[in-house]
Amino acid sequence: MASQLKIGVIGIDHGHIYDMLNGMLKAGGVFAAWATGPETPEHTRAEFQATYPHVPEKTEAEILEDKSIHLILCSGINSERAAVAITAMRHGKDVMVDKPGCVSLQQLADIRRTVAETGRIWSVCFSERFCVESNTLADRLIAEGRIGKVVQTVGLGPHRANPSARPAWFWERQKTGGILTDICAHQFDQFLHFTGSTEARIVSAFTGNVANPDRPDFQDFGEVLLEGNGGRGYHRVDWLTPSGLPVWGDGRMTILGTDGYIELRKYIDIAGQPGGDHVFLVNGGGVQRFDATGTGLPYFGHFASDIEARTETAMTQAHAFMATELALTAQAIAENGANK
Amino acid sequence: MASQLKIGVIGIDHGHIYDMLNGMLKAGGVFAAWATGPETPEHTRAEFQATYPHVPEKTEAEILEDKSIHLILCSGINSERAAVAITAMRHGKDVMVDKPGCVSLQQLADIRRTVAETGRIWSVCFSERFCVESNTLADRLIAEGRIGKVVQTVGLGPHRANPSARPAWFWERQKTGGILTDICAHQFDQFLHFTGSTEARIVSAFTGNVANPDRPDFQDFGEVLLEGNGGRGYHRVDWLTPSGLPVWGDGRMTILGTDGYIELRKYIDIAGQPGGDHVFLVNGGGVQRFDATGTGLPYFGHFASDIEARTETAMTQAHAFMATELALTAQAIAENGANK
Repeated sequence: MASQLKIGVIGIDHGHIYDMLNGMLKAGGVFAAWATGPETPEHTRAEFQATYPHVPEKTEAEILEDKSIHLILCSGINSERAAVAITAMRHGKDVMVDKPGCVSLQQLADIRRTVAETGRIWSVCFSERFCVESNTLADRLIAEGRIGKVVQTVGLGPHRANPSARPAWFWERQKTGGILTDICAHQFDQFLHFTGSTEARIVSAFTGNVANPDRPDFQDFGEVLLEGNGGRGYHRVDWLTPSGLPVWGDGRMTILGTDGYIELRKYIDIAGQPGGDHVFLVNGGGVQRFDATGTGLPYFGHFASDIEARTETAMTQAHAFMATELALTAQAIAENGANK
Repeated sequence: MASQLKIGVIGIDHGHIYDMLNGMLKAGGVFAAWATGPETPEHTRAEFQATYPHVPEKTEAEILEDKSIHLILCSGINSERAAVAITAMRHGKDVMVDKPGCVSLQQLADIRRTVAETGRIWSVCFSERFCVESNTLADRLIAEGRIGKVVQTVGLGPHRANPSARPAWFWERQKTGGILTDICAHQFDQFLHFTGSTEARIVSAFTGNVANPDRPDFQDFGEVLLEGNGGRGYHRVDWLTPSGLPVWGDGRMTILGTDGYIELRKYIDIAGQPGGDHVFLVNGGGVQRFDATGTGLPYFGHFASDIEARTETAMTQAHAFMATELALTAQAIAENGANK
């Protein structure tokens, strides 16, 4: 690999691509070229171009054939990410995909096989952890033993539906993968991470449509109950964020330990302190509140190092697979009626 | 019934008796006599006597035979409450028991039969709703349509174990009924109430011991996933409140509606505003914070009226039975390994 980490972008259909790209640019990457998918709206393309005016738009094939490009970032339509990642790895490139990394267990099996055969890295940018500094502070507090052994997580991940701004595929189950695959992906990641679980199973999973009767195919509510070898977890997601909330979602994470607990109010402290990244610690020493702003987002720098050193410090490959497999399995359980 | 509501207390083993009694005294009741159980510690008896020095301690039989006493309040040892309630109803008295109202499905069946045969009222004082004003305000906001239709509840009910202050029976599964029967009873009540469910089933239930290896019979963690005909619910309880929390538990209730949500921080707003009964409302109109202090506790007054008018305004008899049955069923599911 060259000393410079050259980056190509294939697929910009979700705005997460900006977080992924900016994170890697801060970590020393050089943005070389980008390509959109066939369904990318013109306004999405134009906005991206305006943000990076000096970076050339190319075809996907040109980017794949460019041997100087080592890392592909992909935030295409959910259902198309697996194919981009597999093709990129077959071309010798490491990959960071937006979540969900894929939308079916078959796609995941294909990705696993490709990673095994090519030795490339398939990373999923779980932005609700990797792009949120309150998680970084939570990691530090847990590592310091401030809440003892973690025994359970409760994650609430409400999202704003924002119908007028959504492309058509947002409403299609086959393209998004469903609510547990899509926005609950973050929750599986955080559950495994905070409980330190390396094995886990879905105890129960449910998806529903509670507030969108005009879109019967759309899942606006989902929940899962999890049991891992490091702890248990309950995680709920929805597309019900009220219009009066100043941010896209009142994301919360409560991490229960044997000697205390941590609450993250990630994006807003409703009717409380301004800003985001509010961390609350309660233990034998009392109640403390932290502003996690400035704690840093180590994922991106670690990932750049991993690409260079072929290590797994940002996230293990097994973790990316397991978080994704849990999400896909939960989605299947919820839709097949088992364990409902 | 006389115009005066005369009250007898049988069983004072849990401090909830003070809330129950004081609530009924404010509602116009007259405290006539009290009796302890055979295992009641002397300090518990002495404290109660010192609080109500002008009220005579009598035997249970004397209270039961006193026809001027119309209402029995009972906060005996969990496993003994059913027998007290049944005997009291057989003596023509209405009953308010501390939660849990009983500890086995057999006891509940006996109570149901007694209610049917005697026409007496069996009420369970679910203190985490009836003695907490933030619930009263939540009721009002929901009735006003401020969050649309309620679709789900997430309740977190951590409790302080406080081992040095606990009687021996606190640690005995057979006497407490287990964590889901005991402290999760409140959660079943609130789930049914806020979702408006008249039918419900346990989707999943779990109990565990995560932080008390020296007391293997003790359950310090429990959780249930619920599905009702009015909505869904996830509820977690534990005995893990850290010593540094200034109150006995950071009880939370999040009520998700189609058009907004309500969060109750019942006893403390950690590192936030002082006091208890913090209510947060988020909907299309924005984010609002309410101090629910002074909203009132209508259960007790309604119960006094119900006794007079033979109505069910404080809580329907069916609700008291269903909340209790769900708790007992969840406990059995958790311990039998089904649905874990």
